[in-house]
Amino acid sequence: MAEEVPPPAHQVPAVSISSDGTSSSTVQKARFSDRVRIRSILGRPDGGAGLAGQKVRISGWVKTGREQGKGAFAFLEVNDGSCPANLQVMVDASVSDLTKLVATGTCVTVDGCLKIPPEGKGTKQKVELSVVEVIDVGTVDTATYPIPKTKLTLERLREFPHLRSRTNSISAIARIRHALAIATHTFFDEEGFLYIQTPIITTSDCEGAGEMFQVTTLISHTEKLERDLIENPPPTEADVEAARLIVKARGEAVAQLKSAKASKETITASVAELNEAKASLSRTEERSKLKPGLPKLDGKIDYTQDFFGRQAFLTVSGQLQVETYACGLSDVYTFGPTFRAENSHTSRHLAEFWMVEPELAFADLEDDMNCAEAYVRYMCKWLLEKRYDDMELMAKNFDKGCIDRLKLVASTPFGRLTYTKAIELLEEAVGKGKEFVNPVEWGIDLASEHERYLTEVVFQKPLIVYNYPKGIKAFYMRLNDDGKTVAAMDVLVPKVGELIGGSQREERIDVIMERIEEMGLPVEPYEWYLDLRRYGTAKHSGFGLGFERMVLFATGMDNIRDVIPFPRYPGRADL
Amino acid sequence: MAEEVPPPAHQVPAVSISSDGTSSSTVQKARFSDRVRIRSILGRPDGGAGLAGQKVRISGWVKTGREQGKGAFAFLEVNDGSCPANLQVMVDASVSDLTKLVATGTCVTVDGCLKIPPEGKGTKQKVELSVVEVIDVGTVDTATYPIPKTKLTLERLREFPHLRSRTNSISAIARIRHALAIATHTFFDEEGFLYIQTPIITTSDCEGAGEMFQVTTLISHTEKLERDLIENPPPTEADVEAARLIVKARGEAVAQLKSAKASKETITASVAELNEAKASLSRTEERSKLKPGLPKLDGKIDYTQDFFGRQAFLTVSGQLQVETYACGLSDVYTFGPTFRAENSHTSRHLAEFWMVEPELAFADLEDDMNCAEAYVRYMCKWLLEKRYDDMELMAKNFDKGCIDRLKLVASTPFGRLTYTKAIELLEEAVGKGKEFVNPVEWGIDLASEHERYLTEVVFQKPLIVYNYPKGIKAFYMRLNDDGKTVAAMDVLVPKVGELIGGSQREERIDVIMERIEEMGLPVEPYEWYLDLRRYGTAKHSGFGLGFERMVLFATGMDNIRDVIPFPRYPGRADL
Repeated sequence: MAEEVPPPAHQVPAVSISSDGTSSSTVQKARFSDRVRIRSILGRPDGGAGLAGQKVRISGWVKTGREQGKGAFAFLEVNDGSCPANLQVMVDASVSDLTKLVATGTCVTVDGCLKIPPEGKGTKQKVELSVVEVIDVGTVDTATYPIPKTKLTLERLREFPHLRSRTNSISAIARIRHALAIATHTFFDEEGFLYIQTPIITTSDCEGAGEMFQVTTLISHTEKLERDLIENPPPTEADVEAARLIVKARGEAVAQLKSAKASKETITASVAELNEAKASLSRTEERSKLKPGLPKLDGKIDYTQDFFGRQAFLTVSGQLQVETYACGLSDVYTFGPTFRAENSHTSRHLAEFWMVEPELAFADLEDDMNCAEAYVRYMCKWLLEKRYDDMELMAKNFDKGCIDRLKLVASTPFGRLTYTKAIELLEEAVGKGKEFVNPVEWGIDLASEHERYLTEVVFQKPLIVYNYPKGIKAFYMRLNDDGKTVAAMDVLVPKVGELIGGSQREERIDVIMERIEEMGLPVEPYEWYLDLRRYGTAKHSGFGLGFERMVLFATGMDNIRDVIPFPRYPGRADL
Repeated sequence: MAEEVPPPAHQVPAVSISSDGTSSSTVQKARFSDRVRIRSILGRPDGGAGLAGQKVRISGWVKTGREQGKGAFAFLEVNDGSCPANLQVMVDASVSDLTKLVATGTCVTVDGCLKIPPEGKGTKQKVELSVVEVIDVGTVDTATYPIPKTKLTLERLREFPHLRSRTNSISAIARIRHALAIATHTFFDEEGFLYIQTPIITTSDCEGAGEMFQVTTLISHTEKLERDLIENPPPTEADVEAARLIVKARGEAVAQLKSAKASKETITASVAELNEAKASLSRTEERSKLKPGLPKLDGKIDYTQDFFGRQAFLTVSGQLQVETYACGLSDVYTFGPTFRAENSHTSRHLAEFWMVEPELAFADLEDDMNCAEAYVRYMCKWLLEKRYDDMELMAKNFDKGCIDRLKLVASTPFGRLTYTKAIELLEEAVGKGKEFVNPVEWGIDLASEHERYLTEVVFQKPLIVYNYPKGIKAFYMRLNDDGKTVAAMDVLVPKVGELIGGSQREERIDVIMERIEEMGLPVEPYEWYLDLRRYGTAKHSGFGLGFERMVLFATGMDNIRDVIPFPRYPGRADL
């Protein structure tokens, strides 16, 4: 694969330089291991040919193995996850028991000598490894190994989340996802943004929308209590009454001893007995109140007994919280997991997914759009530079057009048009006979079919649509002077539709208060958010990018469950 | 501050170069805003003096402001969060109403001209801004603003998590935290590790230890059901019986019509009535079974009705999951939030905190220690290079020794000793009269006092203690040949004690099975983890670094609640 389009030189960072820095024809071993990464060999511009003659130790998992020459030797295709390409490894029967090595999934560490393969063997490899010694073997029982040589469907692979990283497709996606994450941090760091880790557990609800997961210790406490109540049933009313009578009797005994002027010791002993009885009564009364079920107060669940003293949730967005840092540190971003407890079984929804949310102080909607466009184009360039070999694998196996799409986005300024213009274009299309499932008229929220039509058919490039009707957008988006639209924007890209949603935030305290009222939201939960407008308010803007959507866009994959290491959706949270 | 130790040149990335790249004496504006960052002015090696005469727009919040010359002009110290230093801004009364500008917390955007301040004014500034026009003001009501000019304690500041980023200390910590996070990603990316985002919601429990938060939608569904049952009480047994009687009556009616050979229409109508009655009975029976409280099955909570079809938790560590990717992609790391539902009110514990967890395939304990040491030293060097000005602020305001500590760690190889040797040293110390609260003997888990004594007093540098007794360590740590110890290691540093815990993982299926049994753990939940040993097992190692501990170590802060943007602990989850 790598030989068709030679990877750019910087794709092999520091790898063609030896550890003593003197010679570029010496291969460098991984810094925290005694092996050489296969990428350090095959990822070189010469495909590793310049390393012929060198002795190296490599490790990895056998993709395919076959004995040849009537068992005289074996060829293993070994992959260590550092790149999509396998290293061809040749083992002589005199070196090792070949039957233990050839099964798919076997883990091997071998010492050997790099060689130019004999010509005419039909191999694409520029170099292969001739094994001198087998250092370590992790065997595989082929009868039970769930990831056999024959290709499993992506859907079937999801049944083995702990093993699927050993496949070509999932490992290439993991490397692309890594590259996009590093590109994200590098872009924002270079542009002077600070990474702020907003909270995962929250007591706020961004927009009052979206179904949220609850975070609690109440259920486990309730279960513990219920187990305890079964083992030690709570005292009955009669038990409490009995304890009360004992207290009464002992009290009378004390009084009697006192009036009989008994000795001090006798009275003290009697008082001690009384106190003991009182303590016992108190414990009995306390326990008699215990009830199975969640703790209640006035008929409602008593969240003062929960871990945080109130109801807590998993965040649906870090935006509101990161705004508090933007209004002090100017340019910030958050990159973390977010959650939706929606019962969606589509190929585009997850219960747990990652969001990138920059927030820019002293920036208006145009600055926001400039930032979003620069960020997306930066990621595309980064991928083309750093993971071209993985992109080639995706193009070959899943989506022929994915490399061209990256190149298009990297090189082409995004189209920009208002929502009103977008509706006009869609209405024109309808006039010319284009049929949409969802009717088109000013005021609607654009459906995915509309978005994809605009970006894929009309403009054939990424688009930014801005100035949406206020009725379909959140209260915190800045009201435009027309009183009808807000300074919101969405970035639409071919293949996935909406990739980014953002807005200039409403910084005027009177306007935002009106919007909250207009939308029937309660004010109290937003007091802290409103404080940002009350005290030294600043013009600011931001956006959110669904990270998995970006991975879908880049890789051309169709199902979001395949572009996150451990997908969570209704009924499934493996591992 | 910056003038005492000039910042290294690379501390001002691309900032002394103008946007057209031609002249280093032209200041560059922020890319997605029309302002210039204050860091771009004051962060230059010349403190900004070389920019005198240039017109710039700056934005930020007034730290202190004072009218002078009987109200003829005002001086504002303005900070935009890009660096700890404030820019001195001079406004003439002819330009603007000064009373609106001078209150602490006011947000200003101003155009002005950079000037060398007159000599003898006692200012440390190399440059100040003389305002030509005030573009924008976000005012402050000083009577109610919670973050006044007078310094609040850190504890009091925690009451205002949405505003505390405007203070010198919290903003410097945020910049240092950012730098450590970027250093983390850069280090691992440079070393060829892949960033794997392990799940936050998990159905596994790493080590079976640690109290976990539960993630659920059961409570909200129960609350909804209970509200519904109050509004529409469920049918009684009598209601069900009545519905049953109607079905019976209608059934008899149908039978009667049939035997009376009634018309087809009449019978069809009667059958329709019967079916309706049956449907109504079925609904009534269904609703009559509804009960308040969590759904139960065989006396236990019925988690098949929960969102994921089983009990789910917030992760306490991504280690086990990231191991699945190491055993396919070789070198990986995770960097994400982790959770403990422990009722700890100490200055060292949070309910939500961030962990960095690398996992290295084909690496033994020594490789693991090498990686941990290289990573920690890399972060220290990075901070000294990139955020020296913030470190100076921390040294001045909180911990005089913090810069020296960074330099020590950056430049000194870590000490390494076995646990057994560590115990010997501690016993020697006890022999010489040193008193510990926790007794010292082979087999104990080292307490913080022991760890800090070793690193701060005995070695006076970072230490790695390795080969711990197996009895105090987790089942997945590799058993050493002595049968008594495991290949575990802890990195101890001055100021915080344990910063990192790691181990070589047990890759031998028979040994790990024995360890699980020995520790009385159930096997079933770990089947997927054991599969990694069953199929192509690989030597591998890893460690975990508590990210907030690293920030504490770097900044010299004492309370962990001050080094994370939004601290979560028992009773508190603000925002």
